[in-house]
Amino acid sequence: MRYGDRVLDLAPALDRALSERVAGPNLDRLLAAGRVVWTELAAAVAVLEPPEEHLHDLADVRLRLPFTVADYVDFYSSEHHARNLGRILRPGQPELPASWKHLPVGYHGRAGTVVVSGTDVVRPRGQRVSTSSTTGDPVFGPTVKLDIEAEVGFVVGTPSALGTPVPLGAFADHVFGVCLVNDWSARDIQAWEYQPLGPFLGKSFATSVSAWVTPLSALEAARVAPPPRDPRPLPYLDDTGASPYGLDLRLAVRLNGHLVAEPPFAQMYWTAAQQLAHLTVNGASLRTGDLFASGTVSGPEPHQRGSLVELSWNGTEPITLPDGSVRTFLEDGDEVVITATAPAVGGGSLELGEVRGRIVPG
Amino acid sequence: MRYGDRVLDLAPALDRALSERVAGPNLDRLLAAGRVVWTELAAAVAVLEPPEEHLHDLADVRLRLPFTVADYVDFYSSEHHARNLGRILRPGQPELPASWKHLPVGYHGRAGTVVVSGTDVVRPRGQRVSTSSTTGDPVFGPTVKLDIEAEVGFVVGTPSALGTPVPLGAFADHVFGVCLVNDWSARDIQAWEYQPLGPFLGKSFATSVSAWVTPLSALEAARVAPPPRDPRPLPYLDDTGASPYGLDLRLAVRLNGHLVAEPPFAQMYWTAAQQLAHLTVNGASLRTGDLFASGTVSGPEPHQRGSLVELSWNGTEPITLPDGSVRTFLEDGDEVVITATAPAVGGGSLELGEVRGRIVPG
Repeated sequence: MRYGDRVLDLAPALDRALSERVAGPNLDRLLAAGRVVWTELAAAVAVLEPPEEHLHDLADVRLRLPFTVADYVDFYSSEHHARNLGRILRPGQPELPASWKHLPVGYHGRAGTVVVSGTDVVRPRGQRVSTSSTTGDPVFGPTVKLDIEAEVGFVVGTPSALGTPVPLGAFADHVFGVCLVNDWSARDIQAWEYQPLGPFLGKSFATSVSAWVTPLSALEAARVAPPPRDPRPLPYLDDTGASPYGLDLRLAVRLNGHLVAEPPFAQMYWTAAQQLAHLTVNGASLRTGDLFASGTVSGPEPHQRGSLVELSWNGTEPITLPDGSVRTFLEDGDEVVITATAPAVGGGSLELGEVRGRIVPG
Repeated sequence: MRYGDRVLDLAPALDRALSERVAGPNLDRLLAAGRVVWTELAAAVAVLEPPEEHLHDLADVRLRLPFTVADYVDFYSSEHHARNLGRILRPGQPELPASWKHLPVGYHGRAGTVVVSGTDVVRPRGQRVSTSSTTGDPVFGPTVKLDIEAEVGFVVGTPSALGTPVPLGAFADHVFGVCLVNDWSARDIQAWEYQPLGPFLGKSFATSVSAWVTPLSALEAARVAPPPRDPRPLPYLDDTGASPYGLDLRLAVRLNGHLVAEPPFAQMYWTAAQQLAHLTVNGASLRTGDLFASGTVSGPEPHQRGSLVELSWNGTEPITLPDGSVRTFLEDGDEVVITATAPAVGGGSLELGEVRGRIVPG
């Protein structure tokens, strides 16, 4: 557990009965323990005086992947992002795919290449079609459109049975908490491969997650109404009159230390509760460690866009950083850090653990 | 290990040193043990006289998922299937997507809903747009286009490092063996959801695999030249002059006991070795238990098509079974069994373990 720049080795600081139920090299046992234990732990932590002997400087701690990732699903739930991508990638067609306002569009990503914040990202190689190509044939080499996607991830603790959907109201029974995600994307590889079965190698080389998972219970003060939905969703997705799971998380994206975007999570069209209800409505089961991410978080304003393909409009409008350097997509050596704050229970704000990654040549 | 209708509990029949390295409740430890051990085991099995006390009747054995599935990837590597689907789903557009002959198109599926042969499949519910809809708005309910996909799956034993592609020639160092796969598909759910990020709930409710994994080494006599490729693939996919991994597996699909298709795996455009080279060329790592499937196996002839959407041409040409019943897609109570044979080392043929599943109402 993190206290600013210090890290508490939590298990030895708890009473023994609770400690024995959750202690382990990562969060896997806590995730599997279920909501009653999560609540018990939150209550214990609230009154905990962190014992000095179990506090360590953050700089002295090697962070690891906070849980074993079971399945990884990535959604596409920012209307602003989806419209921007539609305009950039599919000009002349409707900005939003036909189903977009009826369901949270999503797909499965590669769980085995989810890496912890701080892990270097090797620039991937692959096939792409050069815009100057006269034949339309692909060339092979390092991506020249390496991008970020600033996202929020949700971590499943309690599994569900095959054949049994998880309704909107059961969201907090299954989801333990929230992490930050950078879903690195090679736009040129993706553009060539993605029809008709979706992104594959353009995404699967690495997905970075924060080393810290913030419990949902710590985000109660961040809950806000999501944007109005039109048309009204089908009943299994309809959170009208319920207590919906909009979350006022304020993301910040820094490139080589310079703030380049401030994406507002509160503006996401579909909430994580709707995503989970959709993900399971066909009877698909959940496992402890399932991770589902929101999709790129973008707001309506240009400085609220959570990807470089939007910020530089697919490279046509390079961005200039305060140090004078210019970027369209990522260059080798670039470091990206995504952070977020949220209103805290009891006032003030809390920080979510950051996700950080540096590009190294392939 | 299977001997016809009997099952050998293999570990106690092996010498102790080998047994200790591979014994376990499933194949996970054998998969992780690596190629040297796989070869040693194959040699031991070849001279084994199965001891009666460790042989059980197949009917008395409860089969389980043969290994823990890490990531599940599904390819789309039959040219005949891809062209048929293009004609059915995207009339007026080119039959094959632009990248299809340059790379093995694939995507990630849901590892957590891979189930063992014999598991009932609950008819999934979801959103679909009725063909009689005047508004284009979706309705919600059980799929009315539940389909099969007869496929061959490849099981990874030896992992690879993030950032390091697996070349064509290293295929057999990483892949332990082959299983049969039925990648159940809800065509109506899929059609509505799949743009632009690919199949999601139309596939993720269940994928059945055989309880038996046939080692690659047992399929040496089945190796054949794959079809000619035009254009010649990029170097990392070019198996010209190498010893390519075409496999003469002859599949049979039975619906309620009636043979409905005989898909020829030898005609797949892309081999599993090419699929693995592609899957990792961007630096994506492999884990023990990764499963990648071929995509629906279809040959050029109508009776060689490995899915009902092809056999019934999207429901427009119902098929009549020998008992007089008529099918377009699957009905509740239907049982599908996929089997396969292959030329055996030393002559004759061997049978791959079947994959079986029955549809139950949602």
